[in-house]
Amino acid sequence: MQIICLQENLKQALNITERIIGKNLTLPILNNLLLATENNRLRISSTNLEIGINCWVPGKIEKDGSITVPAKLLSGFIGNLPNKKIELKTKDSQLYLGCENFKAVLRGIDAKDFPIIPKIKNSPLIKIKSEVLKTALAQVAEMAAISEVRPEISGVFVKIEKDLIKFAATDSFRLAEKIIYQNKLVSARAGLVSAKDGLESLNHSLIIPQRTILELVRILGEKDLLGAKEDQEVEVILGGNQILFDLGYSQVVSRLIEGQYPDYQQIIPKNLEIQATLNRNELINGIKIASLFSGKVNNIKLSIQPKKSLIEISAKDTDIGENKSQLNAKIEGKEVEITFNYRYLLDGLNNIFSDKVILGLNSASNPVVIKPVGDTSYTYLVMPIKA
Amino acid sequence: MQIICLQENLKQALNITERIIGKNLTLPILNNLLLATENNRLRISSTNLEIGINCWVPGKIEKDGSITVPAKLLSGFIGNLPNKKIELKTKDSQLYLGCENFKAVLRGIDAKDFPIIPKIKNSPLIKIKSEVLKTALAQVAEMAAISEVRPEISGVFVKIEKDLIKFAATDSFRLAEKIIYQNKLVSARAGLVSAKDGLESLNHSLIIPQRTILELVRILGEKDLLGAKEDQEVEVILGGNQILFDLGYSQVVSRLIEGQYPDYQQIIPKNLEIQATLNRNELINGIKIASLFSGKVNNIKLSIQPKKSLIEISAKDTDIGENKSQLNAKIEGKEVEITFNYRYLLDGLNNIFSDKVILGLNSASNPVVIKPVGDTSYTYLVMPIKA
Repeated sequence: MQIICLQENLKQALNITERIIGKNLTLPILNNLLLATENNRLRISSTNLEIGINCWVPGKIEKDGSITVPAKLLSGFIGNLPNKKIELKTKDSQLYLGCENFKAVLRGIDAKDFPIIPKIKNSPLIKIKSEVLKTALAQVAEMAAISEVRPEISGVFVKIEKDLIKFAATDSFRLAEKIIYQNKLVSARAGLVSAKDGLESLNHSLIIPQRTILELVRILGEKDLLGAKEDQEVEVILGGNQILFDLGYSQVVSRLIEGQYPDYQQIIPKNLEIQATLNRNELINGIKIASLFSGKVNNIKLSIQPKKSLIEISAKDTDIGENKSQLNAKIEGKEVEITFNYRYLLDGLNNIFSDKVILGLNSASNPVVIKPVGDTSYTYLVMPIKA
Repeated sequence: MQIICLQENLKQALNITERIIGKNLTLPILNNLLLATENNRLRISSTNLEIGINCWVPGKIEKDGSITVPAKLLSGFIGNLPNKKIELKTKDSQLYLGCENFKAVLRGIDAKDFPIIPKIKNSPLIKIKSEVLKTALAQVAEMAAISEVRPEISGVFVKIEKDLIKFAATDSFRLAEKIIYQNKLVSARAGLVSAKDGLESLNHSLIIPQRTILELVRILGEKDLLGAKEDQEVEVILGGNQILFDLGYSQVVSRLIEGQYPDYQQIIPKNLEIQATLNRNELINGIKIASLFSGKVNNIKLSIQPKKSLIEISAKDTDIGENKSQLNAKIEGKEVEITFNYRYLLDGLNNIFSDKVILGLNSASNPVVIKPVGDTSYTYLVMPIKA
């Protein structure tokens, strides 16, 4: 292999690919990045056996070839070089790098030992704007269960329906659902037009590992990369038990989680007898203050008082003391007191971007729904704590 | 006690005082801040028995008194309140707080159990601009030894001479010295004018714990606090085994370290037979790149080549690979190769702010001196590693 490419391009490709690489003692090649020439470009690949990332760098290919080298070492070296031309050359399982007055030799491992990152050649199921996808995934990803005791809820659930896509995640204490409506999609294969020859023949529901979603959100958040456009599109392609997100300059491939996702829709209440509308920042502030007095149990109490048009947030701990905050709210329905783990409330509110939010519930023992005002695409649900 | 003060002022005072408070299980009152009325202001104090910090908040004192309350709880509560008037009131060892619609009761501990922070009433030894003091201390503080095996080098050494003040710190592998010349001082008590009745009667040398210096640098770095001026002055006052830094709105009191500081001056070479002048950023970059190849020993090699007017930085590890960077330099003296722990070189270079630096040495087994070009006030010295 012999290639010349620009430091800036190489650095960006390393930044995208290296983050999934941990420290693997049993299989050292997983600490390495694969560098290989492909269609007159340099392909850089990483994998942790669950997720695989490819990234392509433009350059002048003088001789085809491939090698794998330690990811952190390569990215540390490249990152400190000036933004000039870099020459990469392989010889005897070593990578020779040169850039102006800087030279290095990296010991590598043969590319043929690198795990294969699956290639999925189906036509795309969905095309979606990078920004729309990123926001939707980020709004639900952190609600997935971290434990692997119930693997089916350790991922983000995706359901493709006739004219929309739903993303959901839950750890059984709280749940987030985000809907992307048809008008926000660039295109959906047959799917959203004619169910007959399109979506019917594919899985309608899939579960993507949380780690994959978090990596994807990170990569989608990186701007101006290797020719990425302002309104970059992402193609979502399914194949067997794998999913591929194709950004053009980069691809993220991941296994899917097998299993049946719980029928979460049935616990989202259809009618909400009590509804309070209030300022989001004030609510966050009131919860944060009460959290200081919530002791080890994290419990805070919301008292919804329609007659006074206010919500009182309070917490009490015999060792610490107590507090009470009153927030103005427009309230419909009857008076109620309800107890929550404050962390679950904050997680939802931090993923809502409207000035005002609606708190909706039916009783102190049923889940509460938190929604942005003027946006039906996001629903957050928290189970209360039984007093 | 009954006081009304502004949230913003209270928040700033808490920010200054609370940082030295850890989690003390044996003496719970050390987790608390002391709040006490004093000369028509509210004084907030913290201590970890080594350092004590006082801070004064303007306010309307309606009733004198005092209490101690948990620091993290108080600052968490105050920090989330709006910038409005806060009422503080004590009753039965509890602190009642109110601000608009937010109320809290904090369980406290009686103020009489709070450790006394020494008051030092001597006249100031030195007056110095806050910015000048902060920069000088920050340039040496991190070189002090972290281990307490040799307590005398675990602090920053301060030496007051006839027309200058020297700050020094070392961990025996490297050393930093910063001099503040008379023209940078606001005033020095008699001291720098007439040694007879001033400095002669005081200790000329003292050792201040590293932790104190780091806290002081942090506090001096906070701007626009409680009426702090752009060119705030700091008074340094000595008393017994204590030192007081008086910023006006705040005071830092610390014990001094007893013992004899090593006579470090004797290891700073007077003449430097080999001197290389080169760009600081390029040198930092070259060292960072070589560090990647330095393996577990952290060793990198500098080869000074006067004939080629360059310094070659290299490192090699059989498992990793090797590298070589060439930097242009103006060099006087003979050719030499010298090995260093790269971390010690970077620590010094990160505390130099000039574009160009001088590397000076006499041989591969003697210490190397790093100095900014055009500034004689800072000297950094590193011991080489014997090859």
